[in-house]
Amino acid sequence: MNLEPITSAPDAAEMARRLARVREGMAAENLDAYVVHCPDNVFYLTNFHNYVHERPFVLVIPQEGALRFVVPHLEEEHVRVRAVGPIELVRYFEFPAPAGETWADRLRDALGGAARVGVESVCPLQVAEEVHGERVRSDIVDEARMVKTDYEIGRVVHASQIISEGHAELMAGSRPDEMIIGLFSSVTRSMTGRMLRDMPHANMLASSFAAVVQPPSVSHDPHNFTDVFARMEQGGPHVSVINCRVNGYGAEIERSFFLNSVPEAARRPFDVMMEARRIAFEKMRPGELMSEVDQAVRDHFEKHGYLDALLHRTGHSFGVTGHEAPFLAVSYERPILPGMLFSIEPGVYLPGVGGFRHSDTVLVIEDGNVSLTQADDELDTLTFER
Amino acid sequence: MNLEPITSAPDAAEMARRLARVREGMAAENLDAYVVHCPDNVFYLTNFHNYVHERPFVLVIPQEGALRFVVPHLEEEHVRVRAVGPIELVRYFEFPAPAGETWADRLRDALGGAARVGVESVCPLQVAEEVHGERVRSDIVDEARMVKTDYEIGRVVHASQIISEGHAELMAGSRPDEMIIGLFSSVTRSMTGRMLRDMPHANMLASSFAAVVQPPSVSHDPHNFTDVFARMEQGGPHVSVINCRVNGYGAEIERSFFLNSVPEAARRPFDVMMEARRIAFEKMRPGELMSEVDQAVRDHFEKHGYLDALLHRTGHSFGVTGHEAPFLAVSYERPILPGMLFSIEPGVYLPGVGGFRHSDTVLVIEDGNVSLTQADDELDTLTFER
Repeated sequence: MNLEPITSAPDAAEMARRLARVREGMAAENLDAYVVHCPDNVFYLTNFHNYVHERPFVLVIPQEGALRFVVPHLEEEHVRVRAVGPIELVRYFEFPAPAGETWADRLRDALGGAARVGVESVCPLQVAEEVHGERVRSDIVDEARMVKTDYEIGRVVHASQIISEGHAELMAGSRPDEMIIGLFSSVTRSMTGRMLRDMPHANMLASSFAAVVQPPSVSHDPHNFTDVFARMEQGGPHVSVINCRVNGYGAEIERSFFLNSVPEAARRPFDVMMEARRIAFEKMRPGELMSEVDQAVRDHFEKHGYLDALLHRTGHSFGVTGHEAPFLAVSYERPILPGMLFSIEPGVYLPGVGGFRHSDTVLVIEDGNVSLTQADDELDTLTFER
Repeated sequence: MNLEPITSAPDAAEMARRLARVREGMAAENLDAYVVHCPDNVFYLTNFHNYVHERPFVLVIPQEGALRFVVPHLEEEHVRVRAVGPIELVRYFEFPAPAGETWADRLRDALGGAARVGVESVCPLQVAEEVHGERVRSDIVDEARMVKTDYEIGRVVHASQIISEGHAELMAGSRPDEMIIGLFSSVTRSMTGRMLRDMPHANMLASSFAAVVQPPSVSHDPHNFTDVFARMEQGGPHVSVINCRVNGYGAEIERSFFLNSVPEAARRPFDVMMEARRIAFEKMRPGELMSEVDQAVRDHFEKHGYLDALLHRTGHSFGVTGHEAPFLAVSYERPILPGMLFSIEPGVYLPGVGGFRHSDTVLVIEDGNVSLTQADDELDTLTFER
């Protein structure tokens, strides 16, 4: 399995490999065509990134031959610049448009009377309702994305290197009273700069960087970033959060850390979180079910009386996004396979004490797993004297 | 009609006004409940902003009483901090989740057996399929959003002031060989800074700023921003693009401009664009149809031989987004009403010459319209000696 970073653009052979996987899924479900609307799935199959707005982009996968991509006229050139592999553009002028000239008319053309047509679970109703054959809800592109190609792994290795450097910079700049938005600005600039040095033609529409820290007063509430002018504090746990999409490929790294002192009340939850993390790293290997990793983590937290302190599952995947299926979650009984990527981020959240969570971007290999992100993780190496 | 900027948060009375409009739409269609998934519609009715990812947020509007908001446990606190007005939270723990504990189970609870249920055209299939009563596709929240409340207008006035200042800064910094990404960085920082001075509790998740310039070599292709290291050039037309979402409310301003010289080939298309713009401003008033504004602009371009040079309609609306319905577009035969907001941005695009487009954020008033964004627009005032 490739573990070297890749910074080149995907070639037509890579796109053909992905399409072949999707067509296997189509064959298994006896589909004559598949309709792709989700921008991440479009990007996976075309290397073209779009936002969802009132002018739809709809990709039609026929059983054979080139992809057919229904696009607004305004974006034709943009698609041609970015797309990789054989794609036939089927253009409409604008939305709204007169009858006979709408995106829906062109989608019907692209479907060409296919009898049995697959659509995504997240397909907008207005697109799904334009499928006039037998409509089958099936997430075969999402399925194809679950095991990464060597190329995807190389891109996520690269993204992970960038954010590991960014995280070191974030830790180096952390001190009591530091304004978090200032560090956000300098660390994201550094990461963006490295991306552009490595990939001067990076697609900024498919790139994003975040580098924040939750101070201990809010770190028990992991999606609370409401105070723009928040500053770091003495003690901890602070929780760092770096995530990214580096020219189309995602990764994340997070750490609970301390400034100058560790409150007594923080020691036990930190240790319990670390043990949960060790359990998750140990269990996440081919042959286990995803649900079993999360169940083992939950059992451990329950044993220590923290079941009420859980707010989320153990992990999610990465790929052409920074957050996607499959999931390390109870009841999600899928086998873990080599070439899958997961965050490992068991967390406990104690109001009045704080949030305890490390996260890494981790690749499943034949005999276990390997973390693609790098940072210290022990209490002593994450307690900074500043 | 209020034309003063507003920077305060919406109050419960404002949210009640919006909800009342939506419930009028529900009554007209005889709906027992309405399901809102689109984040912009959720924000419009709750002041809470979310992204779409694998953990759904689904807002249920019953015929009477509080809104019911199906949310992941992880986001409960975040919702409570931001939401305005009476909202009953219906939480699920996580996605994926065991049978009986999924978001779909909680959505069924929130719907409470409603017999006739409205859903958005953009509702994901997986959400729409959980509606077990009679399902009616109807965009009543989008309809309610078309005419703005006084509060919304005040917020867009404020957003327009910020981007008008930003545009003046962008023009002041424009000179041949200037790297565009550098100006992007300084101008967006200025605009973000003013937003945070005016609204220290601004929701950064509902805020975004762009400030770019297309040099003449690519301005004929209006969605081409592929060269991150692009620089400005001698001559023109350059096209400036500033758009924003200022703490949840959108606006835009754009200008075709020139540095030191105006190529002969650019004079006629600039004049024809200016006349198209004059026609649009004159026709955009209560009593006209939206389609007629665009048709008049198209007729004018056709008369001058530029029909093939068109890439888009004359305009779109603003509100809780920077780009939304309704549209100034042929075949879109809706009446223009006071309190609507539109961009007026007729454009012509000539490969080898460039793009000719000004855009403003314009409010429809009783006896015509008023531009909320301010910048020079004539050829001589948009030709800078640098």
